[in-house]
Amino acid sequence: MDIKLIKAPGENTLRIISERSRYKIEENPGAIGLVQGKLIEMIGACDIAEKSVGVEVFDVRGSCPQNFVLLAIVGDMEEVKVALENIKAGGDVKKW
Amino acid sequence: MDIKLIKAPGENTLRIISERSRYKIEENPGAIGLVQGKLIEMIGACDIAEKSVGVEVFDVRGSCPQNFVLLAIVGDMEEVKVALENIKAGGDVKKW
Amino acid sequence: MDIKLIKAPGENTLRIISERSRYKIEENPGAIGLVQGKLIEMIGACDIAEKSVGVEVFDVRGSCPQNFVLLAIVGDMEEVKVALENIKAGGDVKKW
Amino acid sequence: MDIKLIKAPGENTLRIISERSRYKIEENPGAIGLVQGKLIEMIGACDIAEKSVGVEVFDVRGSCPQNFVLLAIVGDMEEVKVALENIKAGGDVKKW
Amino acid sequence: MDIKLIKAPGENTLRIISERSRYKIEENPGAIGLVQGKLIEMIGACDIAEKSVGVEVFDVRGSCPQNFVLLAIVGDMEEVKVALENIKAGGDVKKW
Amino acid sequence: MDIKLIKAPGENTLRIISERSRYKIEENPGAIGLVQGKLIEMIGACDIAEKSVGVEVFDVRGSCPQNFVLLAIVGDMEEVKVALENIKAGGDVKKW
Repeated sequence: MDIKLIKAPGENTLRIISERSRYKIEENPGAIGLVQGKLIEMIGACDIAEKSVGVEVFDVRGSCPQNFVLLAIVGDMEEVKVALENIKAGGDVKKW
Repeated sequence: MDIKLIKAPGENTLRIISERSRYKIEENPGAIGLVQGKLIEMIGACDIAEKSVGVEVFDVRGSCPQNFVLLAIVGDMEEVKVALENIKAGGDVKKW
Repeated sequence: MDIKLIKAPGENTLRIISERSRYKIEENPGAIGLVQGKLIEMIGACDIAEKSVGVEVFDVRGSCPQNFVLLAIVGDMEEVKVALENIKAGGDVKKW
Repeated sequence: MDIKLIKAPGENTLRIISERSRYKIEENPGAIGLVQGKLIEMIGACDIAEKSVGVEVFDVRGSCPQNFVLLAIVGDMEEVKVALENIKAGGDVKKW
Repeated sequence: MDIKLIKAPGENTLRIISERSRYKIEENPGAIGLVQGKLIEMIGACDIAEKSVGVEVFDVRGSCPQNFVLLAIVGDMEEVKVALENIKAGGDVKKW
Repeated sequence: MDIKLIKAPGENTLRIISERSRYKIEENPGAIGLVQGKLIEMIGACDIAEKSVGVEVFDVRGSCPQNFVLLAIVGDMEEVKVALENIKAGGDVKKW
């Protein structure tokens, strides 16, 4: 699972994510966290991120609306960082 | 074959699964089990899970309705756990 | 090439195969054999299976009708077993 | 590159190839040769096969008409065998 | 992540990129930089490139508009070079 | 990156390329060069080939018009050979 954190993402970067998800650019966020991996991992990461405080979570889609290729976590820098840390810690998701 | 168990899945996580399967969110389930692997493995896991007690089984689809990328098993925590254990034990499915 | 045998497949399992092939569920079959591999292997396995006695053979499709992702062999337990054994023995299909 | 030779292919096998190519089943052929590999290899194999005597060559398509996933060579047993031997020998196609 | 720099790209090369992105050919650019890698890497590279001076950044799409298979960076030779150097240096994007 | 050279390509081979690109068969060419590799490599090879003398360059598409799965270089035998040599030499394309 690859995880990246973008500080003060630029217009093009926000547009690329917005065009492929339900994310609407209203004001530029402080940070965007990105998570890419197997579908099962990204659904698990989504659950953990949405239980974090102050961030919004979006599934970024590939070639069709039902596809799911990337998880985007939008918020202030500190809150996105906490969400990414929680994803690494595993939260309520257990490998069986 | 990857198997994960999510306790008390959040709204976004349920929506992601619901948008890509016949699963309708009526009340938040206690747990969701996820199984990802080869198509032949997921069909075998589906057969075992649906013979377990108290869970519902959904095929999560990818880019088109006919695709099948993930198996979701919805129910109470204990019942989902039993279904996942049964999948590991192999049930009525034999490797030939 | 992966081969699996499912005894008395459940309703969901039959529906998943039925939704992705010409297979119509009339009465629950005794067994389903599944074969997954390269396209060239599955076409070879299809030829062998359809020359076996008492089974029906279906190509299970992926994201589009022209795709072919899995071979399903439907029939009584003993007949499906014989078809799977024949596939392993190679029948009229030769590797060149 | 995988190559297989099917003797007196059955109805289902012919239908699977026919549904995914321009091949029309008129009378059952003596043999079908199948070639699966990289696109560049299959186009090269196509060129060699169509310069062989007495066989017809078809590109079998995947999820869309423009896809090309398998080469089918239809004819009498001996002629298909010669075409497959020619493919192995390399014909007018050179690796650069 | 693969990175290439094309000096004074030809008409066909510009057309291939133009047909698959929002890029409109007005006058032939001095150079095009190309970046191919995982989606998460290309979004990170996009953010860095668009914070560079004097270049324009385009997401090149694959089989559907929502797909994203390559990043193109268009501008004068020296400015494209600086953008590619910045991508290698990592900019505001951190691996977590 | 795979490179092949086909001498005096046959009708089926030309049709397969024509159906998947802007290439129109007017008279049979002396040779076709084929290049298959990563998208970034094929765009680089396209730029080099179109700067060669006497050949035409076509992007062969896969499942959708925006896809790009193979580069075809059409012309006389000697000119196609020179283009393929130029591709190997790297031309105006630099790995960064």
